[in-house]
Amino acid sequence: MSPTPTSMSDPTAPASYSWEATDEEVARRYGLPLESIVRFDLNTSPAAPAAVAELLAAGRFETSLSEYPPSDYRRLTAAASAVYGVPAEEILVGAGADEILDLVAKAFLGPGDRAVIPTPSYAMYRVLTEQRRASVVGVPRLGPGAGRAIDREAVRAAARGAAVVWLCNPNNPTGRLEPDDLIESLLDDLAADARTGGARAPVVVLDEAYSEFVGRSLLTLRAGYPRLVVVRTVSKAYALAGLRVGFAIAPRETLARIEPYRPPGSVSTVSVSIATAILADRDALASNLRRVELERARLAAGLAAAGWRPEPSVTNFLLVPFASAEAAAVAAEGLLRAGLVPRTFPGDHPLANSLRLTVRDEAQDDRLLAAVQQMESTR
Amino acid sequence: MSPTPTSMSDPTAPASYSWEATDEEVARRYGLPLESIVRFDLNTSPAAPAAVAELLAAGRFETSLSEYPPSDYRRLTAAASAVYGVPAEEILVGAGADEILDLVAKAFLGPGDRAVIPTPSYAMYRVLTEQRRASVVGVPRLGPGAGRAIDREAVRAAARGAAVVWLCNPNNPTGRLEPDDLIESLLDDLAADARTGGARAPVVVLDEAYSEFVGRSLLTLRAGYPRLVVVRTVSKAYALAGLRVGFAIAPRETLARIEPYRPPGSVSTVSVSIATAILADRDALASNLRRVELERARLAAGLAAAGWRPEPSVTNFLLVPFASAEAAAVAAEGLLRAGLVPRTFPGDHPLANSLRLTVRDEAQDDRLLAAVQQMESTR
Repeated sequence: MSPTPTSMSDPTAPASYSWEATDEEVARRYGLPLESIVRFDLNTSPAAPAAVAELLAAGRFETSLSEYPPSDYRRLTAAASAVYGVPAEEILVGAGADEILDLVAKAFLGPGDRAVIPTPSYAMYRVLTEQRRASVVGVPRLGPGAGRAIDREAVRAAARGAAVVWLCNPNNPTGRLEPDDLIESLLDDLAADARTGGARAPVVVLDEAYSEFVGRSLLTLRAGYPRLVVVRTVSKAYALAGLRVGFAIAPRETLARIEPYRPPGSVSTVSVSIATAILADRDALASNLRRVELERARLAAGLAAAGWRPEPSVTNFLLVPFASAEAAAVAAEGLLRAGLVPRTFPGDHPLANSLRLTVRDEAQDDRLLAAVQQMESTR
Repeated sequence: MSPTPTSMSDPTAPASYSWEATDEEVARRYGLPLESIVRFDLNTSPAAPAAVAELLAAGRFETSLSEYPPSDYRRLTAAASAVYGVPAEEILVGAGADEILDLVAKAFLGPGDRAVIPTPSYAMYRVLTEQRRASVVGVPRLGPGAGRAIDREAVRAAARGAAVVWLCNPNNPTGRLEPDDLIESLLDDLAADARTGGARAPVVVLDEAYSEFVGRSLLTLRAGYPRLVVVRTVSKAYALAGLRVGFAIAPRETLARIEPYRPPGSVSTVSVSIATAILADRDALASNLRRVELERARLAAGLAAAGWRPEPSVTNFLLVPFASAEAAAVAAEGLLRAGLVPRTFPGDHPLANSLRLTVRDEAQDDRLLAAVQQMESTR
């Protein structure tokens, strides 16, 4: 796929998301049975909540599937309001966090604008910024020894005059939480700089896709920083990536700027109904969180015992650095031969020497550990 | 979250889609039971195909709901390829036709560009164009006596130098098919003008959301006009608006320009699996088409007998003009009091004097006819 220039002036191809190989492609390339392929690249959970099958079989959705989903997603919004502890009018529903990010980009980024990303982070921030013909200012994070934390002063400096700052906490793909109070202090700084400069403070997107895994959210910071947009999802801790349901949570004045870009109805009625029910199921969430915590520790220990060096993580994935990009590529190839798909990073990425591995279930993680042990014992 | 205002009520806000009142709002406003509300405003079918319930109960989806949908939508694309008779590589999957339209706007429209719309047509063409900060050139359609057809020469003239031409055939909200060969001739003209002018021909979007109702498609025209993007959906004739599944069909060189804007996975796994199965179910489609044809004739005759004057339609909706915008508003209010929600048009719309009414099932349409008869007998 090589996109040609568009009607717009930009002579280069637009930024685009890139996927690892599909199950079918991996199975074909390595001569493996399709059902043996396991995705360690997408930070999903190995199984959806048990209640989902019953909900589907009952087939009682908010409206018939022949109708469009309810235009105001009223019940889903009410369920999210209860779970997140925010008023319904501060919530916007989208087709996954990805659509929320797209709506934010549409609302706040245009040609000539600048957006700041503490790098590395989720690839879509750059893709969406560049698709709006705005420019990205990447601000490298601190090193692994410093927890790969945001470089607060550098981000602050870069954010002067910026339209958007994209934050992800805990951060993907590094797997760690920012130090206490860092984001709150950064927001204070951004607000102060805006006052001093007589400009509007940038919109700060705080992607909390993984926040349930640490049981902490910075949602309340929106009271002090009205241009904060918090992003939540049912794809990660709720184990329902297949539904495509995500949320923007923001003070009214900011959400009202995003709402006009919401399409007539992008979330399927089945997804609306299942997400509404599962958000209310605190036990399913708690049980998945316990499971991930235990299994993450077991997987990390197993990898370390085999000679790999996963970094600390508070999420459902582990970042594993290697001596070089070549070593990471060899490791990835070894996993793929076993039907296990890791997340890799392109050659020009700061994590080109690393793989990102999802914490899955015991049986799947044992396959991963066996593959790693075999690679390490034969090299 | 209440539906947001359109650009018409607030000149500084971007263009935005506007919905009719929700079921809950209508029920509350008129003191009606929620389950009595019927949507005549959305051109949906009254019931999803019977096979859907079985598919949901079986719960066998292409991947677990804990995973993201397959990144290449391979099976769904293959099913669409078989049904539409086009190669899989000329198909792009989206979250409903609306996402397809958004991706086209992202790929081909930017600040300063112009897009042509034969008006009136589907509201999203204008919304998406203006959200890209491109400008709309509306070209009024011919009058009702001329079938509300495209004014071919006026569109041709307006399209010189335009980036995009948005066409809808059969057209929503007018319900008619363009005259034979009109669109083919228009494409020839646009190509000739581009050659003469030394410019690229505009991208022509041909929204065929309602084409199954007439059993005709202009898909084959893409061979002669490589910048044609045909839009299809399972929302209308397939009676599955709640799934949010739509398709772009275009020659490779054009589709390749759109693909980079496709988000990582906007269509839910449930929707992917159900749509894959239902697209292959030719009997379900044929039966719905027969049903709509018969019921449309019955509803139109009933409305005419009661004194309303629906225009001819080849779709699953009827356009009903009144003597004035005020008369249309009175008629809409009368229907709403009975829990029947019509599509209305704002005061500055060329169809401000009209209502658009979906052909639903016999019982629902009988309620509509009874409400109309009562209004007409008491005025």
